[in-house]
Amino acid sequence: MSQSAYRTHYATQVTEAEIGQEVTVAGWIDRRRDHGGVAFVDLRDRTGLVQVVIYDEELARPLRSEYVVQITGEVRERPEGNDNEHLSTGHIEIVSQQITILAKSDALPFQVSTALENESENKLPGEDVRLKYRYLDLRRPSMQSNIRLRAKMNAAARAALDNMDFCEIETPTLIRSTPEGARDFLVPARLVPGSWYALPQSPQLLKQLLMVGGFERYYQIARCYRDEDFRADRQPEFTQLDIEMSFASQEDVIAMAEQVLAAVWKAAGFEITLPINRISWQDAMDKYGSDKPDLRFGNEIVEMTEYFKDTPFRVFQAPYVGAVVFKGGADQPRRQFDGWQDWARQRGAKGLAYVQFSGNGELKGPVAKNLSDAEREGLQQAVHAEDGDAVFFAAGPRESSQSLLGAVRVEIARRQGLLKADEFALTWVVDFPLFKSTDDPDDDDVAVGHSQWTSMHHPFTMPSADWIDTFDKDPAHAMSDSYDIVCNGEEIGGGSVRIHRTDIQDRVLQVLGISDEEAQDKFGFLLEAFKYGAPPHAGIAFGWDRAAQILSGANSIRDVIAFPKSGGGQDPMTGAPAPIPPEQRAETGVDYEPEED
Amino acid sequence: MSQSAYRTHYATQVTEAEIGQEVTVAGWIDRRRDHGGVAFVDLRDRTGLVQVVIYDEELARPLRSEYVVQITGEVRERPEGNDNEHLSTGHIEIVSQQITILAKSDALPFQVSTALENESENKLPGEDVRLKYRYLDLRRPSMQSNIRLRAKMNAAARAALDNMDFCEIETPTLIRSTPEGARDFLVPARLVPGSWYALPQSPQLLKQLLMVGGFERYYQIARCYRDEDFRADRQPEFTQLDIEMSFASQEDVIAMAEQVLAAVWKAAGFEITLPINRISWQDAMDKYGSDKPDLRFGNEIVEMTEYFKDTPFRVFQAPYVGAVVFKGGADQPRRQFDGWQDWARQRGAKGLAYVQFSGNGELKGPVAKNLSDAEREGLQQAVHAEDGDAVFFAAGPRESSQSLLGAVRVEIARRQGLLKADEFALTWVVDFPLFKSTDDPDDDDVAVGHSQWTSMHHPFTMPSADWIDTFDKDPAHAMSDSYDIVCNGEEIGGGSVRIHRTDIQDRVLQVLGISDEEAQDKFGFLLEAFKYGAPPHAGIAFGWDRAAQILSGANSIRDVIAFPKSGGGQDPMTGAPAPIPPEQRAETGVDYEPEED
Repeated sequence: MSQSAYRTHYATQVTEAEIGQEVTVAGWIDRRRDHGGVAFVDLRDRTGLVQVVIYDEELARPLRSEYVVQITGEVRERPEGNDNEHLSTGHIEIVSQQITILAKSDALPFQVSTALENESENKLPGEDVRLKYRYLDLRRPSMQSNIRLRAKMNAAARAALDNMDFCEIETPTLIRSTPEGARDFLVPARLVPGSWYALPQSPQLLKQLLMVGGFERYYQIARCYRDEDFRADRQPEFTQLDIEMSFASQEDVIAMAEQVLAAVWKAAGFEITLPINRISWQDAMDKYGSDKPDLRFGNEIVEMTEYFKDTPFRVFQAPYVGAVVFKGGADQPRRQFDGWQDWARQRGAKGLAYVQFSGNGELKGPVAKNLSDAEREGLQQAVHAEDGDAVFFAAGPRESSQSLLGAVRVEIARRQGLLKADEFALTWVVDFPLFKSTDDPDDDDVAVGHSQWTSMHHPFTMPSADWIDTFDKDPAHAMSDSYDIVCNGEEIGGGSVRIHRTDIQDRVLQVLGISDEEAQDKFGFLLEAFKYGAPPHAGIAFGWDRAAQILSGANSIRDVIAFPKSGGGQDPMTGAPAPIPPEQRAETGVDYEPEED
Repeated sequence: MSQSAYRTHYATQVTEAEIGQEVTVAGWIDRRRDHGGVAFVDLRDRTGLVQVVIYDEELARPLRSEYVVQITGEVRERPEGNDNEHLSTGHIEIVSQQITILAKSDALPFQVSTALENESENKLPGEDVRLKYRYLDLRRPSMQSNIRLRAKMNAAARAALDNMDFCEIETPTLIRSTPEGARDFLVPARLVPGSWYALPQSPQLLKQLLMVGGFERYYQIARCYRDEDFRADRQPEFTQLDIEMSFASQEDVIAMAEQVLAAVWKAAGFEITLPINRISWQDAMDKYGSDKPDLRFGNEIVEMTEYFKDTPFRVFQAPYVGAVVFKGGADQPRRQFDGWQDWARQRGAKGLAYVQFSGNGELKGPVAKNLSDAEREGLQQAVHAEDGDAVFFAAGPRESSQSLLGAVRVEIARRQGLLKADEFALTWVVDFPLFKSTDDPDDDDVAVGHSQWTSMHHPFTMPSADWIDTFDKDPAHAMSDSYDIVCNGEEIGGGSVRIHRTDIQDRVLQVLGISDEEAQDKFGFLLEAFKYGAPPHAGIAFGWDRAAQILSGANSIRDVIAFPKSGGGQDPMTGAPAPIPPEQRAETGVDYEPEED
């Protein structure tokens, strides 16, 4: 490590080897304690802490927490019994000879001391205060470590990709609005009054054009933008690791992506085993009620539709009945089962039917009495429960029932402490449908076209080989060559083989209800490019903020972003966004009116 | 290198070692020639070319330029006399057994063949056509190589910085408008109607806040935005390598930056000698008439003010007279000297006085007769000219005259072929003034405040140590701790020690004519942050597009950017910026009117 004008050593570079030497350190006063007229100061810099002893009261008097100081002194062994085994510098201390105050500090709105953080994180103020004083929040060791982890992830991913001959290419962010399923941020173009740029939702079309341009292997850690309504844990600008390959199949992309993931996980100190498991989209929905299943634990959903097909219980006379076992959950007090009802209702369900297998063959719970004798008899075996387990049921339309049961299994695991932050269950979800219905009320994406079908991924996704000829005749069943990578119940990446032929792209746009004219207007340039020798290509994009959150064990993506926005897209620190003066507005050209002829 | 679903080898992986083997290659048909019923196809992929021989006329018939094909065949040695020493694969060829056309191509609007490019670049169409079909332009080897060079530069810079323990951190691009000397691009905030984000001109304030946040060593290859009027060779969005260090002096930053520069130059195949020379801003202006002098050649400006202080020649009765020698330029025909007058007038000068030293002590040229005998006598020695040289003069205000002479010396060097693209003359320009006058008519930056002074760099630049107490009493002479790095007459980077104390920042803002209220409104968050222990810090930013242009020998920064904008900020390929439909405009909230009470 280098030295600078202000120091000879970083704090943690002061070791037993420096005993007897004079050193100069610089940093913040993390904590000050006084014992019998002697001041003990923990000096903090980006590497950690070192203890400074100050015998001279004059020198010590002005020093306060978070003052920035430069201290020169002699290194000595700590007196016996004063070692601090928690610190790498815990066996030495610096006896201060000279102290320069480089900057003072007002009393902080909240404490950032390393020592306090180690004792408890609970003293943190609300997130709005943390965001307003983000520069102070960033001094906390956990934030320092989150942000530094991101840098390590970047380096690891780039090294893996460079090693596979990928070329990093920057794509523009003042682009033409393209249809990718969310709302664009728009930028008025002063030099072309009445016209607007859009900020990219992703470099999707541009990376496809790079493939047409012959680069074959591209990547970029790219800033992307979506102007969405408030959603917890989303940001208006976010980062993705964006990758595209020519002359590549789904298998080629998956093999490449696994190398990247293994490298990134390794950089964070974790091993993953390759190849990563795969599950079909349909299996994920059936077994886990989610297209991003959390596989840190099992406890699959058991379909009971067939079992209850002749049931006298009206609630179970439904197109779909499924169950999830709560291992050892039979002896929850009634109050707790009532709590589950509330939990289900908050998710929009009517309630959550359950039975308890209390042992001795006894079946308890409000549903029990509604079942036929035969149903009661075989139930425990049919749902794979044991004595002492409870079982939750959902009945109704297949998709919403599975989704509820999927949430139930995660909530059970959460209560059982099975969701460990340092355990990573990665899986590929494959065999996605090409389209989905625009009627789905749970879906808050914007349909890209005007028909009853919208793209499951995006309009540039290739139908799977079996469906090339027929996808537009049977959009409800057509499958695509696309894939998501899921970790611990979060989608951390997704991609597809892309359409590289104008004829197929035209047919997909027709299914989506996008007219030729609209297609020409919105991405005629892509269709034009496909006329001049477009290679087959495929790619993937990783949600880099989410991946960083998972790897750092943070509670929110805001904890892995240096300067995030709050939920409403605001920055409490700078006050962005802000009103602008009329002359600045006039310059943007948004009020331009074309002259009439 | 890896193989994919579509190929066993890249084109240039097919070597003598593969002779007798069956290989599959995939790529574009770069060129096709036919000889005696046999077709010869150059197949191009991202690694280069390989020759394919097709004996089967059926197979060969449909193949056209830029078709995308997959070809399987046996590798053989080329028949004697058919070797191509220009190709790494020039000793072998593939005898085609199977050809799959993966995509067809219409006739191209311009040729992109590697073979043609090697013969002549002059066949390229105008830049608008190149930009409209950028995906084709990018297939040309020179564009491929420019873009790949950028990736190498990125990797080299990051490795050097990682090695010095810098941490890569992303800063937001939807920020609050900050005063940095140019116009901001603005983004309406739909969720906060009537409010706007700005796109950053640089991460300046955010990186300073990262220093307050304790990161100490930060870097980022950052996208930046300036909404400027048309200027040749500028882009509305551009990239800088942005770096900041805490507890660092100017010397620390320069030493660090030189490591980065050496690494980047090395990645491009060039050596630079460290340490890099330095020149003071005043010397640069006096000797080279520019704060970004081209030092690939000497030919300094000679000040002649004193020499001509009693001259009878009215033109030279000026506050400043300077001269530049045109070595061997005495025997230019009169027509050519007239051309120089036109050249000078196009730059806004009245003309360009000159004399010719033709030998035999004879002094020619229109100015000669206006000089006194004594002036004529000593002139050749005073300007350091020799027989056969011409000398150009400028007289008038010091700054504009020096600027003209600075341009003259570059133009002379250009005509003499001294501006070699693969020769790099790097220099630090140091000792800049802190402020400059807002009266300067040549300066097209926007003043950040409302006084007669604006910042030479930006308002966050630290006065030099000598001026800390007095800079606001004598802004005309105050100096700053700032530095530019210049290469071949282009500024490729610049930085400064920053102000980290509220009191100094307040005084600088006062000189700039920024009121307390305005300061609070615009960057109160920075002044607030300085209250809580801000470390001394300093940094630099490199203009990454310009650096890539210089290192690649490209004529324009547009040639090192994958998808650049044309001069008016437009993209001929996508048609961005574009009008938006009324409903999209309504959503942006730009027409929001607050309700009256």
